[in-house]
Amino acid sequence: MLDERAENEPLKDGDYTLSDELFDLVEQAVEQGDTETLARALAPLHPADIADLLEQLDPETRQRLVSLQAGDFDGEILSELDEGLREEVVDALPRKALAHAVRELETDDVVDLVEDLDEAQKEAVLGALDAPDRVAVEHSLTYPEGSAGRLMQREFVAVPEHWNVGQTIDFLRAQDDLPEQFYHVILVDPRMRPTGYVTLGRLMSAPRKTALRDITEDSFRTIPVLQDEAEVAYAFNQYHLISAPVVDQDGRLVGVITIDDAVDIMEEETEEDIMRLAGVGEESLSDRVSEIALSRLPWLGVNLLTAILASLVIAQFDTVIARYVALAVLMPIVASMGGNAGTQSLTVAVRALATKDLTANNVWRVIRREVLVGLLNGAVFAVVMGAVGVLWFGAPMLGVVIGAAMVVNLFVAALAGIGIPVLLEKLGVDPALASGTFVTTVTDVVGFFVFLGLASLVLL
Amino acid sequence: MLDERAENEPLKDGDYTLSDELFDLVEQAVEQGDTETLARALAPLHPADIADLLEQLDPETRQRLVSLQAGDFDGEILSELDEGLREEVVDALPRKALAHAVRELETDDVVDLVEDLDEAQKEAVLGALDAPDRVAVEHSLTYPEGSAGRLMQREFVAVPEHWNVGQTIDFLRAQDDLPEQFYHVILVDPRMRPTGYVTLGRLMSAPRKTALRDITEDSFRTIPVLQDEAEVAYAFNQYHLISAPVVDQDGRLVGVITIDDAVDIMEEETEEDIMRLAGVGEESLSDRVSEIALSRLPWLGVNLLTAILASLVIAQFDTVIARYVALAVLMPIVASMGGNAGTQSLTVAVRALATKDLTANNVWRVIRREVLVGLLNGAVFAVVMGAVGVLWFGAPMLGVVIGAAMVVNLFVAALAGIGIPVLLEKLGVDPALASGTFVTTVTDVVGFFVFLGLASLVLL
Repeated sequence: MLDERAENEPLKDGDYTLSDELFDLVEQAVEQGDTETLARALAPLHPADIADLLEQLDPETRQRLVSLQAGDFDGEILSELDEGLREEVVDALPRKALAHAVRELETDDVVDLVEDLDEAQKEAVLGALDAPDRVAVEHSLTYPEGSAGRLMQREFVAVPEHWNVGQTIDFLRAQDDLPEQFYHVILVDPRMRPTGYVTLGRLMSAPRKTALRDITEDSFRTIPVLQDEAEVAYAFNQYHLISAPVVDQDGRLVGVITIDDAVDIMEEETEEDIMRLAGVGEESLSDRVSEIALSRLPWLGVNLLTAILASLVIAQFDTVIARYVALAVLMPIVASMGGNAGTQSLTVAVRALATKDLTANNVWRVIRREVLVGLLNGAVFAVVMGAVGVLWFGAPMLGVVIGAAMVVNLFVAALAGIGIPVLLEKLGVDPALASGTFVTTVTDVVGFFVFLGLASLVLL
Repeated sequence: MLDERAENEPLKDGDYTLSDELFDLVEQAVEQGDTETLARALAPLHPADIADLLEQLDPETRQRLVSLQAGDFDGEILSELDEGLREEVVDALPRKALAHAVRELETDDVVDLVEDLDEAQKEAVLGALDAPDRVAVEHSLTYPEGSAGRLMQREFVAVPEHWNVGQTIDFLRAQDDLPEQFYHVILVDPRMRPTGYVTLGRLMSAPRKTALRDITEDSFRTIPVLQDEAEVAYAFNQYHLISAPVVDQDGRLVGVITIDDAVDIMEEETEEDIMRLAGVGEESLSDRVSEIALSRLPWLGVNLLTAILASLVIAQFDTVIARYVALAVLMPIVASMGGNAGTQSLTVAVRALATKDLTANNVWRVIRREVLVGLLNGAVFAVVMGAVGVLWFGAPMLGVVIGAAMVVNLFVAALAGIGIPVLLEKLGVDPALASGTFVTTVTDVVGFFVFLGLASLVLL
């Protein structure tokens, strides 16, 4: 696949972005149906880069490119492709080309691929596989989506725990169907339960008669086959694992998960958090306008309801607003500052929960800390806004009112910002779903109520 | 370090959280100065878990624990520790214990550690190292912070490119100072320029007389020593690298970066994006209240200025508000919906830029898409809010005004949400710094202006 000389040319120097020239070349070749130029342009690219290229092309060019390249379509491109685009590209591939592409893939990649396809496409892919691979894929698919069982590959290297280095090396060198990528030899007991592993590097450097048991890695961890993929990713990150054996309910070795799969999940999980915090669902840049508009509607709808709630609060104070229009001018400042401070606390809390840095053991200390930060910053901005109120409208009492409202709202913002996600986590709901919307509802409602309420008391 | 039997007990089943019992036990042992119980409680824990434990303890308990455990303090705990806490813990360690702890670390971890220490501590750490390690660390420190040179380890395994499998295996088995962790043998030309690499797995399984050149990996990439760490992390993620050779300006091999370092950077980069989007600087759960309050002030200050800007807009319309208080009641809805839609677009754009999915090649298509989404959802909520306006206040013209303002503001929100980060990226500024604040300024100002302006025209 790789041509060494040209390797880095289609990418911009140093930053791995596909160059404009490559795009021009590819678009032109596709338009003219020039398969030869196209093949030459794509040859030096990694499948991940070709997938990026496909994602960034407009849909018609993309589909034409896929048909033009069908005879020579690398299965890994499908694996690398954005999930939202897989159906489209699979549809654009003739059955034979699809079969060819899929047969090159490792079984864990096939599992990942067929998860996103419709039934007919899934059948087409499974039908293209050799019998043993098909069985392996179908077996993995019996594990629940999002579990370790779906992530693992079923090819691994295991040896009896009582072997020594020499025996193991001889065994490995005698095998002719070792997995493509493996980094450890797994030690198993007579019941196939993993008891440790040895890196190939250590195996290479140890004397032949060293017992494997004496050179196993410290950070050995097994992964239960039903474990949630987010926890798997956490374990890889926390314990710096390169690969980890997967075990069934009886502790028996059933597969191996490698770091590349775990990294994918890590990225997906943080991506999901970021999007949820902003009230964005699963979407990708290649989705259609109507799909995206529709997927963003629900949160905007929730926001509308909460905004109306805030308006209802304001409506209670229409007489005082009619008399002192300055209140209408200043009230968004109180709400906005609360919203901002609340979002800061919220984001810190959601991330700390995701990385397991915020736990039952320190939650009260962190809540106290956030609330103190809210009060401190509330005091700072109370003084500033008090002064602004006095200078702008020449009304000292207005300054006092807005200052007091600011302190209260930043206090409440901190409390809501940390309290809501912690509560959701306790209830077993993803804390990122708290999103800006809920916290800003609280800060809007409280901000308007305290500011206008105090104003009514003081000014009327 | 690991005791197999007890391995998973101090962690909650399946989710890798430290158990409440462990905390109670540790806190009690520290209070009573019971080093034996303490040592027994910590023994089964991975250094990463001990670091988490330290982070979650209150400062006094933490410092007492460190002094109690000083004689047996694992250097890796320092590496795993939150950057903000390293100084504190290093201070709590007696000089001798620090020297002992640091000598166990690999040189790339020492580099990572001393980066965060003050000069005196740095000297103490460097002074504790053996001469060759000290030279290696000091050499790495000559590379700029955040560059590949700082991330790499200087221990690697390289062999002449013309060797075969047998020669390589014999060479490896004859070495007695191979790196602790290595996954590839790097092929170099006579000038030490890497030309490919072979995984240990392939080396193990290939016949002895196979030329190394014939079994090199497809996805071979070298990393320039001055490359930014964010790009290094991107390359590892994009090309599924496990390790990659680092080369100097002349293309000569100077070190190796492994996936665990790259994963750390990936996590740091997305974390930074998330925090910046929320206007939070670098902070950690263990920072003091005053530090945190201070670090959050700047963005709140910016937000105050922008909120005042929005208030100035409102102030222009005080006469119409005084006559129609309904406007004051409804205006936050227009602003809030715009802010929400803008944040959605912004978040999608910032992430797409970070993952290099949004490039010069598709930026116009994506902008068009966002704007269309904005218009579509604007139309939906225009109808809804128009109806609400009519039903609530019985004023059809008010419904028309709020509906029109909604369409305009959601259009502007989409444009600002994607335009601001794209512009910042073009200017070489981190697009995540656009943060909610700038976009909501635009949507507040435009929302208030269009709504109140239209209302003045229509109602006055």
